[in-house]
Amino acid sequence: MMQYKDTICAIATAAGNGAIAVIRISGSDSYGIVDKIFFSKSGKKLNALKANTIYFGEIKSEGKVLDEVLVSLFRAPHSYTSEDSIEISCHGSVFIQQQILQLLVKLGARLATAGEFTMRAFLAGKMDLSQAEAVADLIASQTQAEHSLAIQQMKGGITTEIQRLRDLLLNFISLIELELDFSEEDVEFADRNALSDLIVRAEKYLKTLIDSFAQGNAIKKGIQVAIIGKPNVGKSTLLNALLNEERAIVSEIPGTTRDTLEDTMIIKGLTFRFIDTAGIRHTTDVIENLGIERTHQSIAKADIVILVSEPNAPGFELMMQISDILNLNKKLIVAFNKIDVQSSHLIDTVFENDYKTVYISAKNRKNIEDLQNALLDFSDYNNLNSKDIIISNLRHFDALQNALQAIERVREGLETHISSDFLAQDIRQALHYFGLITGQITTDEILGNIFSKFCIGK
Amino acid sequence: MMQYKDTICAIATAAGNGAIAVIRISGSDSYGIVDKIFFSKSGKKLNALKANTIYFGEIKSEGKVLDEVLVSLFRAPHSYTSEDSIEISCHGSVFIQQQILQLLVKLGARLATAGEFTMRAFLAGKMDLSQAEAVADLIASQTQAEHSLAIQQMKGGITTEIQRLRDLLLNFISLIELELDFSEEDVEFADRNALSDLIVRAEKYLKTLIDSFAQGNAIKKGIQVAIIGKPNVGKSTLLNALLNEERAIVSEIPGTTRDTLEDTMIIKGLTFRFIDTAGIRHTTDVIENLGIERTHQSIAKADIVILVSEPNAPGFELMMQISDILNLNKKLIVAFNKIDVQSSHLIDTVFENDYKTVYISAKNRKNIEDLQNALLDFSDYNNLNSKDIIISNLRHFDALQNALQAIERVREGLETHISSDFLAQDIRQALHYFGLITGQITTDEILGNIFSKFCIGK
Repeated sequence: MMQYKDTICAIATAAGNGAIAVIRISGSDSYGIVDKIFFSKSGKKLNALKANTIYFGEIKSEGKVLDEVLVSLFRAPHSYTSEDSIEISCHGSVFIQQQILQLLVKLGARLATAGEFTMRAFLAGKMDLSQAEAVADLIASQTQAEHSLAIQQMKGGITTEIQRLRDLLLNFISLIELELDFSEEDVEFADRNALSDLIVRAEKYLKTLIDSFAQGNAIKKGIQVAIIGKPNVGKSTLLNALLNEERAIVSEIPGTTRDTLEDTMIIKGLTFRFIDTAGIRHTTDVIENLGIERTHQSIAKADIVILVSEPNAPGFELMMQISDILNLNKKLIVAFNKIDVQSSHLIDTVFENDYKTVYISAKNRKNIEDLQNALLDFSDYNNLNSKDIIISNLRHFDALQNALQAIERVREGLETHISSDFLAQDIRQALHYFGLITGQITTDEILGNIFSKFCIGK
Repeated sequence: MMQYKDTICAIATAAGNGAIAVIRISGSDSYGIVDKIFFSKSGKKLNALKANTIYFGEIKSEGKVLDEVLVSLFRAPHSYTSEDSIEISCHGSVFIQQQILQLLVKLGARLATAGEFTMRAFLAGKMDLSQAEAVADLIASQTQAEHSLAIQQMKGGITTEIQRLRDLLLNFISLIELELDFSEEDVEFADRNALSDLIVRAEKYLKTLIDSFAQGNAIKKGIQVAIIGKPNVGKSTLLNALLNEERAIVSEIPGTTRDTLEDTMIIKGLTFRFIDTAGIRHTTDVIENLGIERTHQSIAKADIVILVSEPNAPGFELMMQISDILNLNKKLIVAFNKIDVQSSHLIDTVFENDYKTVYISAKNRKNIEDLQNALLDFSDYNNLNSKDIIISNLRHFDALQNALQAIERVREGLETHISSDFLAQDIRQALHYFGLITGQITTDEILGNIFSKFCIGK
């Protein structure tokens, strides 16, 4: 693909001043361009130096020293992009970073677009498309769970099995298409029983992956939690107790405190996102009339609902609320608040298996951990180190659903003994959607969509 | 200095998510520590690999892959710190950066303090103290002028000549001290005429350096500009015209727009800082009574004063103002505003050589460039590429002043033929202050002060 061979450059490290910054250059002219501005101690030209080695020297612009830098040399195909490429490690002043970048551009390099280095790696066959997508997820990962998902995907988690299914299906389809060549002779080269076994296996695998999306998506986007309950029951205090608990977990390493999004809590590497908290925080009696409608909206958006109640609330009314929420198919935690000031009478336990109950004091931060554990229990957080593959990418989810439909048509076709050409058509459909995931089938539009979500420099 | 040999680590790239991030490790155990978490493709241990080379592999924590990284290996003494050191280039997720850092700390590395890598380089003799200080300036540099100063200093600009003077003075003092051993014989080993020549040379050099501080400091801190003038003369419009002019200079390279400090303008690589602009922007008649006092304060703080006046303002009153400002020893630009709506009558030019005059329309952005050129002319911005050495460091300024005083005492001593022991004492004093600049004489306190201003990771 010659159109990708021009030389691109970008600042690869985070924006702003740091001790050092790294500028990445990739493409056929990398060495030629950098040679014009980099002067090694030995005076040797870059082409005379070995790949995978590091050299100290000066970047000069019009005879003036711009910086003292290290350059790391990579040679095609043994680089990230599979092209000749160079990384310049300079002093981390934004001014210097920009000056070097401008020099490179002046000498003929082009500023890389978002994700262009990784796109080149994909186009060169260094990774499949789902692995390339995982690179962006990896960089964006903020929690243990997101990170595990991304690593799993980057390591080929989803594509290994899809590739295997694809190869097996390809084998069948070549046999079936052979049958079509001999269609007047009514032969069957493709063993229908073996194909049927394969289809069952594919169907099962696809369903498992599709089912995993709810969990993967929750990990990636955060698990939506709605806190509901009557006025003055302590919703706002509970929210603060939950969030402050989190904020109190100060990392032991100085400088490691990350920016916490407001109203977001991370428990054991999982992100919980409290929704519509503005409403909770600013609730007054005046606007309480709007409450019912808004509560319904919150519940609809939530993965998990925390219903806050006083321990001595009327049992019947509470059971009605619980029933309503469970009817909406939501995971429910009933949090009896103010246990240290009100006597609790245990509630009717008709649905006891369908929701969790905790007894807390939000004000005095009592048993908040029970509530956190209940959230964790509800979050289906299987250990991501297990072999279970979890998908978190909407594009994969769509392709897998389409693949499953095609596979189901194949199964039905086998059951109803449809003709080989229809069978072949459905298998081709399934292969198409498999190919979309791995990137064996792709379009500029798909690639554009995927890589535009990357940061520049990767 | 054994106490500095423990192994330190830090994130060396700017804070936040980027395509990649670099974690730096330096000290005796660097290889041992990284070996426990880094697994190269070849399976080789780090000790079996060559220095100044780069390897691809995985960082693992408890058997789980944390990231795919590149490690760059450096071996003592051929590294920045002069110790064994390693740079890990990982995916730029903050989560991953923190995880790797925590792993290193768990395995025995210590988090580096600010500037600790550079302090080690200094202590190992890789650079003198003034060069080490220049590293911090280089990283902080935001303009061409700041950058040039820092590069000049990093290249040994100030210390080369000081070192030469120091060596020559050391030669003399050893001869003079020899005379003291033979004091009863009244011999003169040290040629007083040659010493006198050297002292004159030193005095001249020190004075030049000391004089350059005003300019160096202005470059580093920005040149302070006060805009003064009567109410409604157009001060606020002028300020906006100046600042908007600057903001309109959009870099050709996307993503290169730097954060501009409010009320700061960069012209040809020099920073101009407009002072007390809040007053200008919010001036109303009500608070105008406070104006005189505040105007005086602004003038006192300024390097350059822009006096805004209407072209047809009463000439006598204006001349009084001009005279007042010049008496305060300030550089003055008289800006006649509203030239497109008022007829200008040329003012009396009694002091014409002492200030600059421009005729502008702030509202219509007319001749704003003339004003900018006047600011530039007044900023003593000699081309920093010339051989003139400019100091910008307050610590150097102090030491140079003290050194000059000692040198002046030596000169006076030579003139009055004081005894050799007093002469020796004054020369020793000068040598002491020279040593403070280069770091040949230092204390933990001085080092602590200097390196605490660095960023972590450098």
